[in-house]
Amino acid sequence: MNSFEFYNPVKIVFGKGKIAELPKFIAKDQRVLITYGGGSIKENGVYDQVFDALKGYTVFEFGGIEPNPKYETLMKAVALIRKEKIDFVLAVGGGSVIDGTKLIVAAVPFKGEPWDILSKKAPIVEALPFGAVLTLAATGSEMNSGAVITRNETKEKLAFGSPLLFPQFSILDPTTTFSLPSNQVANGIVDTFIHTTEQYLTYPVNAPIQDRTAEGILLTLIEEAPKAMASRNDYDVKANLMWSATMALNGLIGVGVPSDWATHMIGHELTAYHGLAHGVTLAIVLPSLLRTMIDEKQAKLAQMAERVWGITKGTEREKALAAIDKTEAFFQSLGVKTKLTEYGIGAENFAKIVTRFEERGWKGLGERRMVTPAKVLEILKASL
Amino acid sequence: MNSFEFYNPVKIVFGKGKIAELPKFIAKDQRVLITYGGGSIKENGVYDQVFDALKGYTVFEFGGIEPNPKYETLMKAVALIRKEKIDFVLAVGGGSVIDGTKLIVAAVPFKGEPWDILSKKAPIVEALPFGAVLTLAATGSEMNSGAVITRNETKEKLAFGSPLLFPQFSILDPTTTFSLPSNQVANGIVDTFIHTTEQYLTYPVNAPIQDRTAEGILLTLIEEAPKAMASRNDYDVKANLMWSATMALNGLIGVGVPSDWATHMIGHELTAYHGLAHGVTLAIVLPSLLRTMIDEKQAKLAQMAERVWGITKGTEREKALAAIDKTEAFFQSLGVKTKLTEYGIGAENFAKIVTRFEERGWKGLGERRMVTPAKVLEILKASL
Repeated sequence: MNSFEFYNPVKIVFGKGKIAELPKFIAKDQRVLITYGGGSIKENGVYDQVFDALKGYTVFEFGGIEPNPKYETLMKAVALIRKEKIDFVLAVGGGSVIDGTKLIVAAVPFKGEPWDILSKKAPIVEALPFGAVLTLAATGSEMNSGAVITRNETKEKLAFGSPLLFPQFSILDPTTTFSLPSNQVANGIVDTFIHTTEQYLTYPVNAPIQDRTAEGILLTLIEEAPKAMASRNDYDVKANLMWSATMALNGLIGVGVPSDWATHMIGHELTAYHGLAHGVTLAIVLPSLLRTMIDEKQAKLAQMAERVWGITKGTEREKALAAIDKTEAFFQSLGVKTKLTEYGIGAENFAKIVTRFEERGWKGLGERRMVTPAKVLEILKASL
Repeated sequence: MNSFEFYNPVKIVFGKGKIAELPKFIAKDQRVLITYGGGSIKENGVYDQVFDALKGYTVFEFGGIEPNPKYETLMKAVALIRKEKIDFVLAVGGGSVIDGTKLIVAAVPFKGEPWDILSKKAPIVEALPFGAVLTLAATGSEMNSGAVITRNETKEKLAFGSPLLFPQFSILDPTTTFSLPSNQVANGIVDTFIHTTEQYLTYPVNAPIQDRTAEGILLTLIEEAPKAMASRNDYDVKANLMWSATMALNGLIGVGVPSDWATHMIGHELTAYHGLAHGVTLAIVLPSLLRTMIDEKQAKLAQMAERVWGITKGTEREKALAAIDKTEAFFQSLGVKTKLTEYGIGAENFAKIVTRFEERGWKGLGERRMVTPAKVLEILKASL
């Protein structure tokens, strides 16, 4: 096991009806801004539940945060907060709303152009406190301090984080996800699955607790996915998917082990250039990346084959290849296509993506920095 | 899955050489009291490492905290802290030192007789900040807010806890456990194993993430235990045992699932009356408790048989019984005896233990409160 630090002070409040407990977690005298997305929370009752719970508070609202939240949009919320002297922000939504809110609360006290937080890794020394009401099981943003933001103007999608950006609390009520369309449920399952593999499919460092916890998440997703696709309103299924998503990216399965994240980095570019949903880009990139980098990942892939997919026969190489095939077939079983051409996308931006990686000075991505720009191109071509 | 709240703000600093980083976590102007146990840290170099790291700080020390820490001893540390105006306490040791330190930091600002915190559940409204340097993988106290304290005068061993009693940080350097005698390593493995089963061997509530994480801990212990018995200085083995112990009782495997803890409650009485080591009492009580309560626990025991012990044949009852036998044999394989008579202890205090449970108004222990005083007696008799 490698050395590590772990710190995660997010209070998780999990279960049906927990939105009503919001006043336990926000002081009565706070001026609260509620941030949300495209308005689905108005249709599924979550908006009303939140406002009912916050009766007696001074509440403002800022809707319209997009999937892959846009810098330009978020800066409008920053202006509102400064104008109205907001004390506390409550993100109500999925990963995009929570990620966007992380940039908002960091930008409010930031001196200068907040985009520098992303493009120049400008340090965050202060942030407004915030909490979350989660309505989509996918990104894990509800229990970590990182976020990913897109800038329309430059077609960039960049990540940032700070220990000041943990939500003070996150309310996870699985019933808020009952109304989700099945493609969003599927994308969330893929997202959770690949958050897990980014921290698991690297190389062995003798960390059995982390490995088995990661395998437990993968096995749970594989078991629960068909049930989730078959029925929208099964509380236990939605609860298990929600807790899987949170556990996949709260830092625990990543302690003391190498991590990859190259699938995410390449996927972000496909979102930036083509507007593909995050989960979709991951499902496209991962199988190609695993096949391209199989020499690096063979031992863990074979372990995944045995423990997750129940494949016990064959050489290590054969098991590793079978694990990749099973993984790709799993995504397809959820209705998520795994090839760019299936979305009508060709090689038109591959050169730009590779150039952009080179310009950023990224000589190599992945757990051993072996996903060079040349390998990125190879992976993208294999994803066509 | 049941509803739950989870909160754990302990910063974990894990790895060889991390004690040297202490100044990163304690402000320079703090008056620091170092608490420790019987002095083994002076023999294995940990004491010197801590004092070297804290050069330039105003440091006091309080040694002599016993295994199963005694209230009477701890109150002497409270007096020292009040006299010397200590700001921060650093517990250096295993669970007993950390547990004892939790009572110390709660007692310092407490108005009245601090024993009320244990005997009358008097509320803790304030506590001195503290951190820990762990030297024994067992109790999990390094990443939770609970503790167990013994009072010589009344032969009582009672538990308490408060969200104010999380260590601010815990340094986990596996090399600090290299010098442990093998019986302490074995007791630590048993302790970790049974912390896990207390939260796992109850009844199913459809919580696969929690189940699989618990099973991952049990499998890791079973794999690493023979290696730990064979070699003292295998870093990876000691690291995996240390992280297992922390993960078993940091709250995560217990979220959203029922928990038992009857084995602990009965075991505490055996320690209080006979001075048996904590892990030893658990190894004695658990097999008898599982056999006595098998009707309640059969489904999870059969799951454990399949997933942990690899037993796939037989009825559910047969698998459940086989899981108990395997568990008892595992403890014995570590040199830990599982019967009271093997320690020269008979039934002499059984009636007192049962009476004490009745006097405390505990009508029933365990996940369904079905371990009545009569069942406690039955379990104790089966442990002879």
